[in-house]
Amino acid sequence: MSVYLHDIPLQEAFSRLEAALRASGCWGVLGSEAIGLDEHAVGRVLSEAVWAKISSPHYHASAMDGFAVRAADTAGAMPSHPVSLACRTVGGEFSAIYVDTGDPLPVWANVVIPIENVEPLDEQGAPAPDPRHPNAIRIRASVVPWSHVRPMGEDMVATELVLPAGHTLRPVDLGAIAACGHSQVRVARQPKVAILPTGTELVTVGQPVKTGDIIEFNSIVLAAQVATWGGLAERFPITRDDLNEISSRVAEAAMDHDLVLLNAGSSAGSEDFSAQVVSSLGELLVHGVAVRPGHPVILGLIDRHKAQSLLKAAGSVDVQPSINPGQSSSIPVIGVPGYPVSAALTGEIFVESLLARWLGRQPAEPVQVSAALTRKVTSPPGDDDYLRVAVGRVGTKLLAAPLSRGSGVITSLVRADGIVILPRGSQGMPAGTQVKVRLYRPPSDLERTIFAIGSHDMILDVIAQFLAERGRRLASANVGSLGGLVALRRGEAHLAGSHLLDPATGEYNLSYIRQYLPGVPVKLLALVDRLQGLLVLKGNPQRILSLQDLSRPDVTFVNRQRGAGTRVLLDYQLNLLGIAPEAVNGYNQEEYTHLAVAAAVASQRASCGLGIAAAAHALSLDFIPLFQEHYELVIPAEFYEEPLLSPFFDILADVKFRQAIAVLPGYDISRMGMLIAEVS
Amino acid sequence: MSVYLHDIPLQEAFSRLEAALRASGCWGVLGSEAIGLDEHAVGRVLSEAVWAKISSPHYHASAMDGFAVRAADTAGAMPSHPVSLACRTVGGEFSAIYVDTGDPLPVWANVVIPIENVEPLDEQGAPAPDPRHPNAIRIRASVVPWSHVRPMGEDMVATELVLPAGHTLRPVDLGAIAACGHSQVRVARQPKVAILPTGTELVTVGQPVKTGDIIEFNSIVLAAQVATWGGLAERFPITRDDLNEISSRVAEAAMDHDLVLLNAGSSAGSEDFSAQVVSSLGELLVHGVAVRPGHPVILGLIDRHKAQSLLKAAGSVDVQPSINPGQSSSIPVIGVPGYPVSAALTGEIFVESLLARWLGRQPAEPVQVSAALTRKVTSPPGDDDYLRVAVGRVGTKLLAAPLSRGSGVITSLVRADGIVILPRGSQGMPAGTQVKVRLYRPPSDLERTIFAIGSHDMILDVIAQFLAERGRRLASANVGSLGGLVALRRGEAHLAGSHLLDPATGEYNLSYIRQYLPGVPVKLLALVDRLQGLLVLKGNPQRILSLQDLSRPDVTFVNRQRGAGTRVLLDYQLNLLGIAPEAVNGYNQEEYTHLAVAAAVASQRASCGLGIAAAAHALSLDFIPLFQEHYELVIPAEFYEEPLLSPFFDILADVKFRQAIAVLPGYDISRMGMLIAEVS
Repeated sequence: MSVYLHDIPLQEAFSRLEAALRASGCWGVLGSEAIGLDEHAVGRVLSEAVWAKISSPHYHASAMDGFAVRAADTAGAMPSHPVSLACRTVGGEFSAIYVDTGDPLPVWANVVIPIENVEPLDEQGAPAPDPRHPNAIRIRASVVPWSHVRPMGEDMVATELVLPAGHTLRPVDLGAIAACGHSQVRVARQPKVAILPTGTELVTVGQPVKTGDIIEFNSIVLAAQVATWGGLAERFPITRDDLNEISSRVAEAAMDHDLVLLNAGSSAGSEDFSAQVVSSLGELLVHGVAVRPGHPVILGLIDRHKAQSLLKAAGSVDVQPSINPGQSSSIPVIGVPGYPVSAALTGEIFVESLLARWLGRQPAEPVQVSAALTRKVTSPPGDDDYLRVAVGRVGTKLLAAPLSRGSGVITSLVRADGIVILPRGSQGMPAGTQVKVRLYRPPSDLERTIFAIGSHDMILDVIAQFLAERGRRLASANVGSLGGLVALRRGEAHLAGSHLLDPATGEYNLSYIRQYLPGVPVKLLALVDRLQGLLVLKGNPQRILSLQDLSRPDVTFVNRQRGAGTRVLLDYQLNLLGIAPEAVNGYNQEEYTHLAVAAAVASQRASCGLGIAAAAHALSLDFIPLFQEHYELVIPAEFYEEPLLSPFFDILADVKFRQAIAVLPGYDISRMGMLIAEVS
Repeated sequence: MSVYLHDIPLQEAFSRLEAALRASGCWGVLGSEAIGLDEHAVGRVLSEAVWAKISSPHYHASAMDGFAVRAADTAGAMPSHPVSLACRTVGGEFSAIYVDTGDPLPVWANVVIPIENVEPLDEQGAPAPDPRHPNAIRIRASVVPWSHVRPMGEDMVATELVLPAGHTLRPVDLGAIAACGHSQVRVARQPKVAILPTGTELVTVGQPVKTGDIIEFNSIVLAAQVATWGGLAERFPITRDDLNEISSRVAEAAMDHDLVLLNAGSSAGSEDFSAQVVSSLGELLVHGVAVRPGHPVILGLIDRHKAQSLLKAAGSVDVQPSINPGQSSSIPVIGVPGYPVSAALTGEIFVESLLARWLGRQPAEPVQVSAALTRKVTSPPGDDDYLRVAVGRVGTKLLAAPLSRGSGVITSLVRADGIVILPRGSQGMPAGTQVKVRLYRPPSDLERTIFAIGSHDMILDVIAQFLAERGRRLASANVGSLGGLVALRRGEAHLAGSHLLDPATGEYNLSYIRQYLPGVPVKLLALVDRLQGLLVLKGNPQRILSLQDLSRPDVTFVNRQRGAGTRVLLDYQLNLLGIAPEAVNGYNQEEYTHLAVAAAVASQRASCGLGIAAAAHALSLDFIPLFQEHYELVIPAEFYEEPLLSPFFDILADVKFRQAIAVLPGYDISRMGMLIAEVS
C-alpha cells in the first residue's frame, strides 16, 4: 500500500511542486480585494501598483503662517526703504492677505512672507493689535517668488507611481496612499490554509493528559506561522488515525481552502496514512525530502473533483461540497511530519515560500550574520541539515553554539537565535568554522546576550528572568563545571558556574582554574552554597539512606556526565567509601542537568541520583542531604568590567533576587557576590 | 496665552516624561491578562515568565516504531547466537511488545529496538505475517538501555524556565508553552491609545476635496503604528480648531485610554491650541523638542479628575465619565505635529518607546548598516536631525542617498530605506562620510536595489513596476542627465538615463560621456525616442505656439534645473533663436521633473514649460510638439554583466513592457534595447 519514494533534494522537491502548481494554474497571486486604509491594511501586499490619483498638495499651499503677496510688489524693499502693502482690496485687487500654514495661496499671489518678517500696522500706521488682521504690512526686504510655498505636487504629482505591486504595506504607506486621493487599496487575497492534526494519541490543549497522550500543539504553531506570513489559518479538530476519516477531512478542507496542511502523527505508520490519502484524492508528488529535521515531508495535489465525489459518496449532510467557478481544480497539500521541530521547519521551508508566491511578495529573507561554531557538528551528507544555534558575542567573536538536534525538542527552536544550514554534500564542520547564521532575532539582541556555559544550577533560570527585566538575555549551556572552564579557555563564554572540589585541598575550583585556564586572568565569585544529596521517590520506598546503598543490587542510579562537578563529587565520595563504579547499577546512565536526574527518578527510570535539593523539590521527590558545597562563578577579567555584565552583578546585590533564591530549599546565600579570588 | 517653551534636547524631553510618568505610577507594565494559545497570541508580550507545568515528554516515549524490551534480556545476542523474546506474557511478565513512535514505554521495559532490527516470527518460527503482532522476535545484537527512547523531560522538565517575562511571542513559543502543560498564557494588556486629529482644514479620506482641504491621514498612520507596536488604537473623528471642542474630546479620550495623541493642524496657531488644552487639563511638560523634523512636539499629562470635572460641567450626556478603581489619576498626552513626516517620526521616537515600556518589552532596535553619504548634508547644530535616505549597493560600496527633507513630503518616508541621525552639535556632513543607517527594510532588500540616477522620464515608473515583479527594486533620483553622469563617475549609480544633445555634432550623449566619464568603460543603450514640446493649459488660452513666444511679456515659463537634458535642449534652441535667458519670464523658476513642470503649468504657476508629451497627458494639458530626441541609458561595463541588472534588460525585451510604453503618447520604441555604442 505505501507509496514510499526516496528522499529527494530540497530543490527538486520545490521544482516538482512548482511544476504541478503551474500546471494547475495556482502559481501566482490567487486573487485580490479592495480594503480600506486602516491599521488592518498593514502587512497586506499590494496586488497592483498605486499611482497618484491627485497631486499632493493638490493646490499651492502656504508653508508658513504669514502673508501671501506678489513677489513683484516687494521689489526694491530695503531696511532703509520699506514697502507697505495694503491688506484689503484696492480697486478690486489684493496686495497682501494673511494665510495659515497649509492654506491655499490666492490665485494672484506667488509668495508667502512669514509673519515674523513683516510689521503689521493699524490704520494709523502703529503696530496692529491683531497681527493677523492688520490694515497693512510693512516689509524691509524683497522676496523671491515661490518661497515659503509648498507648490502643488511637491510630494506627489497625479499619475506618478507611489508604490509598486508586491509591496507589503507599512504604516507610512497608508498615509501616502490616502494623500494622493485613494480611500481604498487593492491587495492580494489572503490564502486560506486548512490545518488538520491527525493522530489517535493526540489530545487538545487544556485537556487532562495521561501517559501516552501527546498534547496537540503543532496546529497552533502552524496556524500562527500562517497568520504571521499573511495567510488565513483554520485549525481543524484532531482526526484519529483512520484512513477514511482522514480522507473525508482532507476532502472537506480542499473544497474551500487554498492549501491543506495534513499533520501526521509521530509514527511512521501515520505518515503512510497521509501518503495514501494524498494518492487516493489526487497526486503524490514527493514523499520524503532530503532535509533534516523534516525529511518525511509529503507534497501533493488534491483533485477537487475527486474530493467532491468522495464527499458525495459519503453522503455527508453537514458539508455542502461545491467547487466555485474560477477555483482551481486542484490544490496543494503538504504532509507535515509529526515531530514538532520538523513541523515548524516544514512551515518555514515550504509554507512560507508558497504563501509569498500567492501573495506576490518576496519570500522572507532573514538577516544573516557570520559566526564561529563552538563545537564540531556532524551531518548526514545526503541532507540539507538545519542546525539550530544560540548566537552571541563573546569579546570580539560572534559565536554560534549548536543546540539540541532532536526533532522532538521544541525548546531547541525556542532557544535558537538562528539556523545554520549544513548543505547536502557536507558531512559536518569542525569547531571554529565560520558559518552563515539565518537569524531569528534582531541582530541587536545578540549584543545583549550573556553566554553562561558550565555547571547547571536552577538559579540560572531565576537569573535569566531577572536579567530579562534589565535588558539582557542569558544563554546558558549545561556542559558541567569542567566543560565550562574549557569554554572559557576557548573564549566561548562570558562566565561559567563551577563547583569542582579539589580532594587534595578541600578547596573549590581554584586548582582547576590554574590547570585549565593557565595565564587567563579570572575572578572567582561566590554565588551560593548548596546542599547535594540523594534524590529518591516520595516516601523513599527503597529506604536509600547514603551512598553505600548505591552498591545494593536492587538500587539503580542515574549519574551526571563526566566533567560535571556533581560527578567529581560522587567519584571522590565513592573512592572514600571504597565502592567501585562497576558496583553501581546505572553508573553509566548519564544526564546533563539536576532536573534531568530528578526526572529520571520521578519516572522510576532510576531509584536515585545525586543532585541538589531544589531539583528534588521541583519534582516532589524526597531529598537525603549529604554534602554542602560551594557553587561559584568563574569570570575572565576581560569581561568582568564590560557593561554587558554589569546588570548581572546588580542582580547578585538585589534584595528581591536574594529573597527569590533564599526561599528555594537547600541554598545558603550568605556569601553571594563575594569575591573569592583573583587569579592572574 | 501661549505657553511656548524653548526646544529642549530629545534626551531631556524623554527624562521629563519618564519622571512625570513614574510620579503618576504609569511607568511600567500597565496590567496583564490571560489569553489562549492561538495565532492571536503572536506578538503579545509575556507579563510573567512561563515555567514548565509538566515535563515534555511527560512519560518515557518510544522514539521509533519497534519493540520495547528489557536491555538485560538482550545480553549475549550476536549474529551467530540470536536471542528470541516472546511477545506475550510468560508467567505474567512481558518480554517484548510492539510500540509506535510516541507510545509510552511499558514500566518493565528500558529500551526500544527499531522494527527494522528485529525478525518478527510466527508460532512456527517463520516470518510473522503481521510484523507488528508476531509471536516472538529474534534479535542478533544486544542493546544499550534507554536507546531509542525519549526520556521524560527530554525537552522540558517540570518547573524549568521556558520563556522569561518581557518576551514577545512567536509561533514556536506557543508550541513550547502548550507542550509543557499550559492552555493559556499571561501577557501584558495592550495599551489603549486615542488618536485625535484636529484642524478645520481637514477632510476625511474618501470625501471630495476642494482647494484648501487637507486629507486627514496622520491618524491612519499613527493608528497603524500603534497597532504594529502592540497597542490598541482608536481614531477619533476630526475636531475643528475650537479650544472648547478640543478640550472636551481630550477629556473624553483621557477617561478610557492610556495615552492621547493630539494631532495638531499644520499651522502654528493649531499647536497653540494643543498646548493650551494640555495646560488647562493637566500639566504641560515639554513644548518643543530639538529634533528635526518634529520639533513642535508637546509632551504633557492629563489629570483625569480635571478632565472628569470638565465633562461634568459640560453636562455631556453621551459620555459617562468615571475613573476606574486602580486607574492612574493622570495619563500622558503627546501633541503630535501636523506635518505628516513630523507626525510619523514623533510616533517612532516617542510612542514606540512608551508602548515598549508599557508592554515590558525591549524598544524596537532597527538593523543598522554603515553606508557612505552620496552628497553633503547640512543640519541645524541644535537639533537631532532625522535624515531619510535611500540605501543600495553599487559595486562594493553601500551608499546612502539623502531624500527630500520637507516635513510635508510623506513619500520621503515611503521611499526611505532608512534613517541617518545627524546628532545635536553636528552642522552636517560632507559627501562620502560613512554614516550609520537605521534600516526600515530587511538588509537583503538593499542587495536587490538598482540605483538609477540621472534624467527623469516617466518610463522609469513603469520600469520600477516591472522590476518589482522580478524581485528588483528601482531607486531613482532625478538630478538631470549631467548629474547622472557625475553620479556614475563617483560610482554612485548602476545606470543613468541621459538625453544630452551635442550642438556641434547633433549626436546624443557620446561627447558628454567622453568628457564626464574619462577612462570609464560604459555601454550606451537606446531606451526610447521621445517628443519634447511645450506644455500649456488645455485649450492653449494664451496661444503659445513656439519657443519664440517665451519672450512675450504675458507668458511665464517654468524651467528645468541646470544639467537637465531638457535645459540643455532649451538653451541650445534659445541660442539658435537669439533669445536671451533674461528675456524669458520665469527662466530661473526651476523644477526637477517633467511632472513637476506639468504641475506648475496645470496650477497656472506658469503659462508653459518644456517637457515630454507623457507629462502633458498625465495632467490633461495640451502639448505642442517641437523636437524629437534620443533618451538613452548609460551603463558602466562593470555593472552591465551583473546578475543584479539582468532583469532590467529582460524588461526591455518584454513585449508587455514595450506595449505599456508604446501606448503612452510621444514615445517611439523602435530602437529600444539597441546597443548604441561601447565607450572604453
